[in-house]
Amino acid sequence: LNLTNNLKSMKKVGVLGGGQLGKMLAIAASNWHLPIYFLDPAEDAPAKNFSHGLTIGDFNEYETVFNFGKNVDVLTIEIEHVSVEALKDLQKLGISIFPQPSIIEMIQDKGLQKEFFQTHQIPSPPFRYFESKIDIINGQVPYPYVQKARKGGYDGKGVSVIRSVNDFHLIMDTPSIVETCISIKKELAIIGSRNQNGDISLYPVVEMVFNEQVNLVEFLQCPAAISMEVENQIRQIATLILEKMEICGLLAIEFFLDQDNKIWVNEMAPRPHNSGHHTINAHYTSQFEQHLRSILNLPLGSTSMISPSIMINILGEPGYQGDAIVMGLDTVLAHEGVYVHLYGKKTTKPFRKMGHMTIVRPTIEEAIMLSKQVEGKLRIIAKVE
Amino acid sequence: LNLTNNLKSMKKVGVLGGGQLGKMLAIAASNWHLPIYFLDPAEDAPAKNFSHGLTIGDFNEYETVFNFGKNVDVLTIEIEHVSVEALKDLQKLGISIFPQPSIIEMIQDKGLQKEFFQTHQIPSPPFRYFESKIDIINGQVPYPYVQKARKGGYDGKGVSVIRSVNDFHLIMDTPSIVETCISIKKELAIIGSRNQNGDISLYPVVEMVFNEQVNLVEFLQCPAAISMEVENQIRQIATLILEKMEICGLLAIEFFLDQDNKIWVNEMAPRPHNSGHHTINAHYTSQFEQHLRSILNLPLGSTSMISPSIMINILGEPGYQGDAIVMGLDTVLAHEGVYVHLYGKKTTKPFRKMGHMTIVRPTIEEAIMLSKQVEGKLRIIAKVE
Repeated sequence: LNLTNNLKSMKKVGVLGGGQLGKMLAIAASNWHLPIYFLDPAEDAPAKNFSHGLTIGDFNEYETVFNFGKNVDVLTIEIEHVSVEALKDLQKLGISIFPQPSIIEMIQDKGLQKEFFQTHQIPSPPFRYFESKIDIINGQVPYPYVQKARKGGYDGKGVSVIRSVNDFHLIMDTPSIVETCISIKKELAIIGSRNQNGDISLYPVVEMVFNEQVNLVEFLQCPAAISMEVENQIRQIATLILEKMEICGLLAIEFFLDQDNKIWVNEMAPRPHNSGHHTINAHYTSQFEQHLRSILNLPLGSTSMISPSIMINILGEPGYQGDAIVMGLDTVLAHEGVYVHLYGKKTTKPFRKMGHMTIVRPTIEEAIMLSKQVEGKLRIIAKVE
Repeated sequence: LNLTNNLKSMKKVGVLGGGQLGKMLAIAASNWHLPIYFLDPAEDAPAKNFSHGLTIGDFNEYETVFNFGKNVDVLTIEIEHVSVEALKDLQKLGISIFPQPSIIEMIQDKGLQKEFFQTHQIPSPPFRYFESKIDIINGQVPYPYVQKARKGGYDGKGVSVIRSVNDFHLIMDTPSIVETCISIKKELAIIGSRNQNGDISLYPVVEMVFNEQVNLVEFLQCPAAISMEVENQIRQIATLILEKMEICGLLAIEFFLDQDNKIWVNEMAPRPHNSGHHTINAHYTSQFEQHLRSILNLPLGSTSMISPSIMINILGEPGYQGDAIVMGLDTVLAHEGVYVHLYGKKTTKPFRKMGHMTIVRPTIEEAIMLSKQVEGKLRIIAKVE
């Protein structure tokens, strides 16, 4: 009786981070009743009630991560800002860490990401390293340029666009890379995955519309309105990256399409990503299930679209801060093909990611139309004292 | 600032029973982050890790149900064998109980179900009441007939088919109804729902193939291979039942189609049902979300089919008893459109419902073909000592 092939699927999975990505990973795991555990500093982390256990602790602390990780079979992440040292030591103990610690280390440093792109001749905006704000000011960088903190950036934080000398107050005083501004026509993203066998699978390219005020994705369209040629180029670049990285797990890659229809890689995240939320309701396999399949070396799932879709982030409404109140759930739920995902964050603040809606229709035109009908109808506010 | 309309959706939901139906209800609730709580006697009930809390206790005990129920806003069930007395008293306290206690009481007694059918002229097989085994034997009932225990039947238990005097050992000694055997051509089911507004919504009719050995659904097809006329008749009967019952919540109704194409109602369950599991992956709204929408008086969701589907119950393999081991997960997951749901029951025994698979394809023919490919490939066994 050979059980090894099957027991692997019931391995204990540990996740660093228990935010909304963790929660949706837990929901995916629940279908197979996979035992899944989270480490998060917040007592009421979104993933809490959907897992086999939440450990309260800081995923940046060596001891905390080490102690959490040694009790699971496979350890993964839903945020890349974690103690890589602990992961490396856990790996030595024989715990499977996916994505691999060396990849997380590279992703944590936007400078190392750029070097990876250079090494493998992956098109990415030209850049220079700077150690501090004064170095940048003295560096005579032509305007406009983008400063990215090498470490700690997340959800639009750690990125400054400097358009002229008037923006000097926006320059962060931290080791950074400074990139040439691309003349952006579209922002695109692709989610790929790779398992231990080396199988690779890609979702269709999605197109993002950003809320420029907060530099967060506000609206996402799948399929992207791009030519087959651009789609194929992106797929080729993504495949190359997945192969060279030898990643085991999900990899989200963000791209710019410039005014000359040239493609540039912007950045990467080795985990489920905001640009893949629509896959829960609109694709055969969700990005969360795909991540689990990848790290458990199960066959990768079909990434095919069941329906075109629009994904809208539900952000905390400006002007409200405090205990979150959901307004308009019944209004949006009255429409066929509108799926509401609320993350259960107790407190809201302006532009905080509180949930998302996926709008699924037989054609992308209908999906866009319906999304315009429901956009803004589901609001997250707080009680005004 | 009027919040009443919205806060209702974030009411605390309590569920009597934490089995697989409870677990799938919890997963549906998780998308909106509804606070949901379960009462179940089993410490490792399937719903345990997917809820805001599991209370260990017997849902047939007055005190246990009363104490559990008084702490929630809306109380519902995933099994109908619960203390109705406690529910009635909770209702007096102002707790919303859906389905209503009087409906649960009627469903608990197959005799009362029959009387409901008679009162509303709903076609159901002719029947007689009997108090004991000896009464049935003396009753000169023409063979073959079906004995159904008035109370406590579940998952094929509490039902005996008596074909001749040789089957007398199968007659249960309990208050029963005895029904004329219908000459069954097809077994069909429909799931309907109704909210407090009186809105009614029906899923398409499904066709069931039973495993006769254990009287459990083994295979379910949606849409059913029936004429529009039969589909419409069933929809009319279901609408009538939902209206007359004034139920708030989901109602599953099982039917026989006889050799003369006449339709008979077999029985009903006022909750999510095995015959609606395919809706998770193949319909716009799952039966579990629809139940939540009904009891929270949210707009009922679209019941439209996204794709035709086949649902296969995954039963504990005969010959194995003990700690469950899942075999072949990777084999079935290699196919596009195959969704695996495992309930997480720790121990298996022959024919125990351990999970289900839904097979979703663009046509029902393709779905049938793929289901034949994967049927039996996912096995639940136990370690042989």
